[in-house]
Amino acid sequence: MAMLDPDRLLPNNPATRRIARRLYEGVADLPIISPHGHTDPRWFAENEPFPDPARLFVTPDHYVFRMLCSQGVDLAALGVPRADGGPVETDGRTIWRLFASHYHLFRGTPTRMWLDHAFETLFDLDSRLSTATADFYYDRIAERLASDEYRPRALFERFGLEALSTTEGALDDLKWHRQIAESGWSGRVITTYRPDTVIDPEADGFADNIARFGELTGCDTTSWDGYLEAHRVRRAFFKEHGATASDHGHPTARTEDLPQAEAAALFARALKGDLSAEDADAFRGHMLTEMARMSLDDGLVMQIHAGSYRNHSPATLARFGRDKGFDIPVRTEFVRALKPLLDAVGMRPDLTIILFTLDETVYSRELAPLAGVYPALRLGPPWWFFDSAEGMMRFRRIVTETAGIYNTVGFNDDTRAFCSIPARHDVARRVDCAWLAELVGDGRLDMEEAEEMAHDLTHGLARKAYRL
Amino acid sequence: MAMLDPDRLLPNNPATRRIARRLYEGVADLPIISPHGHTDPRWFAENEPFPDPARLFVTPDHYVFRMLCSQGVDLAALGVPRADGGPVETDGRTIWRLFASHYHLFRGTPTRMWLDHAFETLFDLDSRLSTATADFYYDRIAERLASDEYRPRALFERFGLEALSTTEGALDDLKWHRQIAESGWSGRVITTYRPDTVIDPEADGFADNIARFGELTGCDTTSWDGYLEAHRVRRAFFKEHGATASDHGHPTARTEDLPQAEAAALFARALKGDLSAEDADAFRGHMLTEMARMSLDDGLVMQIHAGSYRNHSPATLARFGRDKGFDIPVRTEFVRALKPLLDAVGMRPDLTIILFTLDETVYSRELAPLAGVYPALRLGPPWWFFDSAEGMMRFRRIVTETAGIYNTVGFNDDTRAFCSIPARHDVARRVDCAWLAELVGDGRLDMEEAEEMAHDLTHGLARKAYRL
Amino acid sequence: MAMLDPDRLLPNNPATRRIARRLYEGVADLPIISPHGHTDPRWFAENEPFPDPARLFVTPDHYVFRMLCSQGVDLAALGVPRADGGPVETDGRTIWRLFASHYHLFRGTPTRMWLDHAFETLFDLDSRLSTATADFYYDRIAERLASDEYRPRALFERFGLEALSTTEGALDDLKWHRQIAESGWSGRVITTYRPDTVIDPEADGFADNIARFGELTGCDTTSWDGYLEAHRVRRAFFKEHGATASDHGHPTARTEDLPQAEAAALFARALKGDLSAEDADAFRGHMLTEMARMSLDDGLVMQIHAGSYRNHSPATLARFGRDKGFDIPVRTEFVRALKPLLDAVGMRPDLTIILFTLDETVYSRELAPLAGVYPALRLGPPWWFFDSAEGMMRFRRIVTETAGIYNTVGFNDDTRAFCSIPARHDVARRVDCAWLAELVGDGRLDMEEAEEMAHDLTHGLARKAYRL
Repeated sequence: MAMLDPDRLLPNNPATRRIARRLYEGVADLPIISPHGHTDPRWFAENEPFPDPARLFVTPDHYVFRMLCSQGVDLAALGVPRADGGPVETDGRTIWRLFASHYHLFRGTPTRMWLDHAFETLFDLDSRLSTATADFYYDRIAERLASDEYRPRALFERFGLEALSTTEGALDDLKWHRQIAESGWSGRVITTYRPDTVIDPEADGFADNIARFGELTGCDTTSWDGYLEAHRVRRAFFKEHGATASDHGHPTARTEDLPQAEAAALFARALKGDLSAEDADAFRGHMLTEMARMSLDDGLVMQIHAGSYRNHSPATLARFGRDKGFDIPVRTEFVRALKPLLDAVGMRPDLTIILFTLDETVYSRELAPLAGVYPALRLGPPWWFFDSAEGMMRFRRIVTETAGIYNTVGFNDDTRAFCSIPARHDVARRVDCAWLAELVGDGRLDMEEAEEMAHDLTHGLARKAYRL
Repeated sequence: MAMLDPDRLLPNNPATRRIARRLYEGVADLPIISPHGHTDPRWFAENEPFPDPARLFVTPDHYVFRMLCSQGVDLAALGVPRADGGPVETDGRTIWRLFASHYHLFRGTPTRMWLDHAFETLFDLDSRLSTATADFYYDRIAERLASDEYRPRALFERFGLEALSTTEGALDDLKWHRQIAESGWSGRVITTYRPDTVIDPEADGFADNIARFGELTGCDTTSWDGYLEAHRVRRAFFKEHGATASDHGHPTARTEDLPQAEAAALFARALKGDLSAEDADAFRGHMLTEMARMSLDDGLVMQIHAGSYRNHSPATLARFGRDKGFDIPVRTEFVRALKPLLDAVGMRPDLTIILFTLDETVYSRELAPLAGVYPALRLGPPWWFFDSAEGMMRFRRIVTETAGIYNTVGFNDDTRAFCSIPARHDVARRVDCAWLAELVGDGRLDMEEAEEMAHDLTHGLARKAYRL
Repeated sequence: MAMLDPDRLLPNNPATRRIARRLYEGVADLPIISPHGHTDPRWFAENEPFPDPARLFVTPDHYVFRMLCSQGVDLAALGVPRADGGPVETDGRTIWRLFASHYHLFRGTPTRMWLDHAFETLFDLDSRLSTATADFYYDRIAERLASDEYRPRALFERFGLEALSTTEGALDDLKWHRQIAESGWSGRVITTYRPDTVIDPEADGFADNIARFGELTGCDTTSWDGYLEAHRVRRAFFKEHGATASDHGHPTARTEDLPQAEAAALFARALKGDLSAEDADAFRGHMLTEMARMSLDDGLVMQIHAGSYRNHSPATLARFGRDKGFDIPVRTEFVRALKPLLDAVGMRPDLTIILFTLDETVYSRELAPLAGVYPALRLGPPWWFFDSAEGMMRFRRIVTETAGIYNTVGFNDDTRAFCSIPARHDVARRVDCAWLAELVGDGRLDMEEAEEMAHDLTHGLARKAYRL
């Protein structure tokens, strides 16, 4: 084991490291709960082998290709498909060599930790990826991927996954989840209700989406009441396929609790494509409150992911489409934005709303104070750009003083990169134990408390918050 | 001493810890100056025993009940009085048991440190509070509270309080302070002039408050000049009762320096309840500049506490009234907001204005650069949600590089919880010494300098800034 | 060596310190690249001795005099020239004694580190500056400054400067640079194109500046096309005098990419002094995009310094003029502000735009995500108030996880204080090595990687980014 230090991410001070190591040993092998992510359910339905190394590790991973892009590498050279179907690099080995020659860019980043972890623990590669080792890596990974032990279900079991949530749009037929369920395989792969495309009047093809929403649910989605009913029907359908949560990716955290007549009028105009940007924002905000009310009825946990400026580069959007690494965080306000929702349902202890942010300044100023008093609120783990060892440590250090750990929900990996799941959870466990060890070391916690908290942070909080 | 580690909060690295311990030993037993807080002067006037443990530690402490609320505990079950006088839990032991069963929620929070400190040092309790120990705790605390050594004045002396400031509204008769003064007791309990209710046109009953303000001062508070004179008279009255400072809790840091005619016109309309939200904000802002000018005359130090969104939950406000843990920080701007005030009086070295924020992002960007150049400005310690070991460390690390320590004012406990005062000051001393020890350890300070700075941070800066 | 700890700023933990020391030893003596700063080229052209100690260390250094001002010292007493030419203190020794008596104010600040470093390494002073040592210091420094080894060129060589960039306005005749070039001296002192006074319609005497701009370049600067051509001509002139970069100090990071007719119309109105504040801001924003387009042609690296509220105190501006320590950071937005520029040229890998901020909240939320994907963007080091050991550590810890180190550009000293250059670079090297040592210590980097990165952070990144 040459790349992975067995004590990686544990505190440098020897006495504190010993405490952290003991805490980590207690949780290192606990099953993984992955209650929020973006893996593809088809993998587990069909259980086909993963494609070549480049298509597993490079082409689909926006953490990887955005860094190479920042240093002038064309996404087409990495095999990222063009929107117009034009030619891109297709040779896996060529892509892999280009990636390998830039691997030094990831020094000090979480991506490097995740990749090294997968390379070493899954593929027994123990000298660093570089131009010199590129072909050796490629051959080893390709060879292993062809074997049955590296098919999706085998890896799922090898990873110790207790439950894995994927995320599907409201219009998805969930056929892969059905296929998984009907296959008799014991792996728990569940869906999450993500209705953005039927909630956001600015989504591409919104009116068509709503029409399709009506067809799927048998509801009259040309009317406001029918539209709400369609959500209820669809949520029930997702619940049948395992969903315990909904997820909402909005540009801001704005919520509204409009009079029903006003919401109905906005909806009618939305169908006609007749909303201003402000109206569209109000409608999205109102729908969060409607979703929360439905959660009170059907028990789905509600997740709000706010504050990403999507597809910042129009040139890249035109050439390669959405989700190509050009989503950039923006300043996000929660205290005033969430008030309508909280006024409506925030005091309900039978509701769970999990908040995620891309603006770390709100941890101490807004989110911890809100979650530290409203029964319905919980804080999700550091999201996206902050899903790093440093980012997680900042979160614990700044949130706990006001909200404690019991208003947080453990770790989410939020990943599309299946092979990074064990690495990501391992990093989270190590960081949590490092943080706890500091508190034990400077007399703020007893060891038994810390052990219990390490368990909760690893397993208990996620299971409870997501009702798994 | 089972709960309190004698080296708690000192650095984990052994060499640095030794330095910190030496620094801490030099200041651990210095008298406490508490120049800003919210204890009740009646306690020291009447010197009656404190009520039962629940009413001492749970029911009045918003840090405690907000955390329990966040996990679904009804405030009524904790004995928090309802606004309509309706029934709430009244049995101290029942409340205490409920609290004890949730004590794990406070792991890693400053509240836990403060409570454990009081439990162990005042009540010789040394196994952690829990459901199992709840009754033992209750009996022990109740028994001690009944003894003379636990009456307010005895505790004041036991705590080593050199001076304790309370905070009273401009309309307060200060009778408890008078009673303390006339009692012959040597404890220095002084008041602070807090005129928010006669400055904020949006305060409940503003016009009535102004009328009462006129009666108390013999000034014609229907006129602008008379209103200003009433402030002067009242400030003098507070000074007679020991006040060395005023305090101003405003939603924002906005200041104005309006022409007198314009301010007078706003005031006239304020009395008629005829101000827009914007006008009200301008009036409050202008009054900060008027207060600063009066400070130049009478020497009162001026404190500005800005940036709290008060009573965020209307349901809780309606059911339990104000100050029930639902005050949430909001983003706060100082550079433009303070400019009118600073243009008027910021260059005056004979004026002291102490700034507090609930938005930590302004420490490095705005407050340290401002306090690091304007003679009239000083920075108050981390306030409210940031009054934690981590929060204090962040403050020192980020403010000192630009403003040094001599533009800060030592520690304020800002508490309503009398028994937490020694714990809070002890935490501050430990954190300051831990921070200094790091600077000594990495060669940035000599030991003698650090010792002098530890003294200043503990005692000298507060005494000087507050003119005590 | 009594003041400077040889291990200063290295980690307190012994094992990590050993790693850091080894890394530091590898870079401590590398040549200094100073690609952005404000030293006076006249020093190197004329090579006259520096004046007395007060005029070297106190009167021109805004870090120094702003701190004394904050504690009530009048700038006139420090010899800062009055705008009206009125009397100020002129006796160097008197000024020095006043400074010395306040030296404790700098404890824990970077200024103290820089000064002590210069005092000890240049003047062999090894007991701390204070009232008691003031005269000894004064005499020693004055004596040395009179010797040839302390003339500017000798110090330049002694400091190991490989290249030093100064900053000149677009209207500067660059005669000192010409004189340096013609002198045959081997020191590389180059200029930087700073066109703010001919780009900002709100600059003093904008129309006159534009007229002069036309005279200097032979272009018709009454027309938009002629004005743009004048920039091209002037940039070429600066390139002849060594410039590899332009620099832009704007109140915000706003950019625009207006239709040329619209830009031309704004320019015409700007010449007439007929722009609103909003129009002026739009014009400045548009010119950043024009400058970027010119950079694509002539290869100058573009630096954007945004977010300073200049000359905050009107009283000080009136009495002492600009740049007297009253520039205060303000909240700054980049994601939307830079979009027009990035839409135009952000995907060009042959362009380098280096961003600086005075708002640290944008490091993780905006700048690292932007620089971590756009090929044209790089992040400048912590600027101005954040040019401290703590500030640099915050930058590395928060930026690297998203952008890596290869989207940053090493260290800039940005100083007017020539004697502080070695100290500032030494601090940067120590902090970078301390940071790297932590990553090595907790298993995130190999030692060889860290050594390579330490080299890059010290030397390679600056040379590459600034095309030196």
